[in-house]
Amino acid sequence: MRKPLVGINMKNYINTRAQTSEWLEATIPLLENFSDVDTFIFPSMGTLETTANLLAGTSFGFGPQNMAPEKSGPLTGEFSVESIIDLNANYVEIGHAERKNLFHEKTSEIAKKIKLALDEKITPVVCVGEEVHANDTNELKNALKKQIEALFQTINLAQWENVVLAYEPEWAIGKASSAETNYIESAHQALREIIRELGGDETLVRIIYGGSVSKENAAEIVRQKNVDGLFVGRFGHKPQNFADIVSIVSKTKG
Amino acid sequence: MRKPLVGINMKNYINTRAQTSEWLEATIPLLENFSDVDTFIFPSMGTLETTANLLAGTSFGFGPQNMAPEKSGPLTGEFSVESIIDLNANYVEIGHAERKNLFHEKTSEIAKKIKLALDEKITPVVCVGEEVHANDTNELKNALKKQIEALFQTINLAQWENVVLAYEPEWAIGKASSAETNYIESAHQALREIIRELGGDETLVRIIYGGSVSKENAAEIVRQKNVDGLFVGRFGHKPQNFADIVSIVSKTKG
Repeated sequence: MRKPLVGINMKNYINTRAQTSEWLEATIPLLENFSDVDTFIFPSMGTLETTANLLAGTSFGFGPQNMAPEKSGPLTGEFSVESIIDLNANYVEIGHAERKNLFHEKTSEIAKKIKLALDEKITPVVCVGEEVHANDTNELKNALKKQIEALFQTINLAQWENVVLAYEPEWAIGKASSAETNYIESAHQALREIIRELGGDETLVRIIYGGSVSKENAAEIVRQKNVDGLFVGRFGHKPQNFADIVSIVSKTKG
Repeated sequence: MRKPLVGINMKNYINTRAQTSEWLEATIPLLENFSDVDTFIFPSMGTLETTANLLAGTSFGFGPQNMAPEKSGPLTGEFSVESIIDLNANYVEIGHAERKNLFHEKTSEIAKKIKLALDEKITPVVCVGEEVHANDTNELKNALKKQIEALFQTINLAQWENVVLAYEPEWAIGKASSAETNYIESAHQALREIIRELGGDETLVRIIYGGSVSKENAAEIVRQKNVDGLFVGRFGHKPQNFADIVSIVSKTKG
């Protein structure tokens, strides 16, 4: 049985140590009754050490919103996996659409990061999703298959177990409403078929949905058979909102 | 009179908080007699908060090796200027060759970062330098002029005062030896002419040299009229080496 999972990507919205501490100190107590749901945060890059100190010893996962494609070396401006390990972080966000579209990340570089994270026992939350709304499930599956094959070609099959896929249709990111629920379910189902076709054990792979998640759409989305959780954005900036989402996932999927 | 300046870019070589603390705690005491030289460090991104805590109240400058092109927002994986301010950091490295060549940074994005840093009163250390060794000073000046014009077109002239240029000829980065001294001096001189031609007061702009700096070449390079200091790489990973370079700059230029 896959344990439900709810994460939040703070992007560059909450960028001071005090604001990040405030969010964590308000949120952690609200989650006490939901140990049946795993949670994680990708705080703003300049607040990671503060996050590490506050989350030490808790079950609240965390990590950076990006990672260098190599362990160490002449990589000015990158965030090394050695620092992730040093901070006792356990997740890393890889391949977000903003990294691809705004900061020119290439698929081959993203694939390297996925392999490195898995080899270093850090859980990669790999963002996948088609750029434009597909007209039918075939078109949807083909678009996703191309991505998955390119991103995961170098991992060994056993490593699928430690992968989290965040399905974020690019056309739904930052929009007022999420993708339609049946569309989401067909995408998640397609992703499972693709993993199976590649030889991976999809039953172990948690696939969460991200893209304009809110209290209004959370229950319906997470009720879908192939959705294991939610990846929250701006809506979760209020601790109570994030806790409400976790509570919904616990009731629906816990 | 421009105060001499020595900086170090740790890139992704020293990536744990303990290693960074060790370097700082060993280096700071060695610099006590060189208050006539400004110093700064760009530690690995995952150790910035530790650096901020250790350098609080000292004159040792620091900051990140890169920065987001906008203050805040949907910029997954970037380092916000708001975090730089929160950490009381006072420098930021912008436009390093590795960001351009390995991580696809565009000139227009680098120009935005320079303007944002200056507007937020953070000193940008802007890396400039030609890709291939120029055959004569004209060719060298033309290559540099193209870069400077594109990078600084949006700043207002008074802001030149807070700019640090790090001249790093790309062809010399990571090599065993630095560029020839007279070549460096002609590049620094060309940079000053360019700033003047653009209307800026070049006498206020510190231009430091970077690219395979070591104890053997430091004195000769920094003796040049238009060189205001050095930007150290791997050679400075040993605290005593870094202190020796600062000492050479103090004796030569202090």
